[in-house]
Amino acid sequence: MTSTTAESGTSWLAPEELDAARQRLPMLYVDAIPVRVDAQGQCTSVGLLLRVTGKGEITRALVSGRVLYHERVRAALLRHLEKDLGPLALPRIPPSPQPFTIAEYFPTPGVTAFHDPRQHAVSLAYVVPVEGDCTPQQDALEINWFTPEETRSESLLAEMTSGQGVLLRQGLAHVGC
Amino acid sequence: MTSTTAESGTSWLAPEELDAARQRLPMLYVDAIPVRVDAQGQCTSVGLLLRVTGKGEITRALVSGRVLYHERVRAALLRHLEKDLGPLALPRIPPSPQPFTIAEYFPTPGVTAFHDPRQHAVSLAYVVPVEGDCTPQQDALEINWFTPEETRSESLLAEMTSGQGVLLRQGLAHVGC
Amino acid sequence: MTSTTAESGTSWLAPEELDAARQRLPMLYVDAIPVRVDAQGQCTSVGLLLRVTGKGEITRALVSGRVLYHERVRAALLRHLEKDLGPLALPRIPPSPQPFTIAEYFPTPGVTAFHDPRQHAVSLAYVVPVEGDCTPQQDALEINWFTPEETRSESLLAEMTSGQGVLLRQGLAHVGC
Amino acid sequence: MTSTTAESGTSWLAPEELDAARQRLPMLYVDAIPVRVDAQGQCTSVGLLLRVTGKGEITRALVSGRVLYHERVRAALLRHLEKDLGPLALPRIPPSPQPFTIAEYFPTPGVTAFHDPRQHAVSLAYVVPVEGDCTPQQDALEINWFTPEETRSESLLAEMTSGQGVLLRQGLAHVGC
Repeated sequence: MTSTTAESGTSWLAPEELDAARQRLPMLYVDAIPVRVDAQGQCTSVGLLLRVTGKGEITRALVSGRVLYHERVRAALLRHLEKDLGPLALPRIPPSPQPFTIAEYFPTPGVTAFHDPRQHAVSLAYVVPVEGDCTPQQDALEINWFTPEETRSESLLAEMTSGQGVLLRQGLAHVGC
Repeated sequence: MTSTTAESGTSWLAPEELDAARQRLPMLYVDAIPVRVDAQGQCTSVGLLLRVTGKGEITRALVSGRVLYHERVRAALLRHLEKDLGPLALPRIPPSPQPFTIAEYFPTPGVTAFHDPRQHAVSLAYVVPVEGDCTPQQDALEINWFTPEETRSESLLAEMTSGQGVLLRQGLAHVGC
Repeated sequence: MTSTTAESGTSWLAPEELDAARQRLPMLYVDAIPVRVDAQGQCTSVGLLLRVTGKGEITRALVSGRVLYHERVRAALLRHLEKDLGPLALPRIPPSPQPFTIAEYFPTPGVTAFHDPRQHAVSLAYVVPVEGDCTPQQDALEINWFTPEETRSESLLAEMTSGQGVLLRQGLAHVGC
Repeated sequence: MTSTTAESGTSWLAPEELDAARQRLPMLYVDAIPVRVDAQGQCTSVGLLLRVTGKGEITRALVSGRVLYHERVRAALLRHLEKDLGPLALPRIPPSPQPFTIAEYFPTPGVTAFHDPRQHAVSLAYVVPVEGDCTPQQDALEINWFTPEETRSESLLAEMTSGQGVLLRQGLAHVGC
């Protein structure tokens, strides 16, 4: 039955079944804010994924993804970080499962600061130091690192969608920036 | 479409559909530890639900339940607390959505300290002060209040199932007991 | 020896001795953000103390004060909230002693976002729901309540000193606003 | 004036002055629980310092120490970890300054679970992964690593003093063990 486990790296739910479930149940997600830290743990920069939409728009995103059936939350965090930042990123998953907040993405805009037209998703959010080399994977063009000050720029926040700019600010508040 | 919203107080997912989803997706839950606190916020007692199983076994449980589609986590917390403790319980839902921990209930025993044979459920856990009168509802026979010291008794913890005794200890550690 | 205990409500350290210690040791403080919440625990407004300086400048402040010798942190929180908001404020001190952050006030500006020319103070910061009537005490002219949106105004933040505007933003991020 | 800064690694308060302050003000401390973690951040073992008292009694201790005047809390954490575990320990100071709890050590036994006959100390407590080689320093004979299960042994907890056994359990609860 290994094909039904999270370890296979894929969901075994057929796409149409997943679509149906998304209209009926809250989906469990993780969001990770990748950071570089100094020897005292102080955040020195934040990594954001750069993508270009079909319309040519630039968007910047956190590392984000679904928790699979029978998958530990910390395993999902590691899987999505390696998927988006590459196998040499060396993320330091926090020892505590306590997220710094939860982000409730609603299909209806305005219920919360977070919006996902496809589904109702509840995401456990973590700040994760990464120590290795990050390289863009899949649909990301680049990974760009910003100082905490730079992330406060309105133009940068405008490039983030789904309310992830709010989540980024909450995460930086949590680490004292 | 109000029948599809969480506000109706019931899941609109047909039972057989919910059963199917439970074999395929992690379900999102909330767990609440009801407590009495003094004027300084110090926990003075912990409320546990007393139930008797079909086999005549006594079990003690936390307040626990599923988050519905399109339902805020804090709304689910309030709903389950009122469902289990009655409409006059006056729970004080915490202002922060940050849970003190998450409990990962696996259908396979031993993956974590938490076990649910029906499903893979990830529960956001909160300690919630209640100020009003609590009366057992539905399938609970009693609500009993224990001092933090009393909850350390091995016999009491043995009456808790699914790993909720571990979660209770984690919650009491979080509030400094 | 009751005169040496925190319960007397005053520090028994002579003013000149306290001044000397302030140049040599970090002082332990608490900061509280008073909030009004709805039945689901969602923050609906934030209370700030209005003071006028000797120069006629308007300043707005959080509830803040020192932890005394032999005083519990939760007792200090309650004492300062009642001192600043009056005896009928009915603050709900959180059951957990875990602060949402610590604010490190340095006598040297720029080391952190927090600055106190008199001393090095480390403050444990909490968001505290208050349910009763608040009336300004001592040197405060008014207590004003702002919606979370209103607190984002730059002009309001400009009226906060010592970096408390930053702490207010961190607290509101913590409660999901 | 570099001699008055924390960076000098020593307190510039004369011993008799520090003794006097200890009878009058709460002292600010940090406590660190050193842990080994796996790639998913799961705690696999906990490090405790072994000391032998003048009476030949074995005691086990967390990393603990005072925050100095003008010293950042994260700098104090790093300093005490390197002082007790050696310069090659490579501690990963958490990015967030939010402690998992605070431990209030009172000179009077029984006020809290924490006791320090010399002083009233309030300690910010953190779980800190260490990645490098740890070697006992100064007055410690050994650093021993225990699995989370082993730390639950009553005999081991009996070797911890000042209530640090309680703090250890709270820290392990926080990381989900």
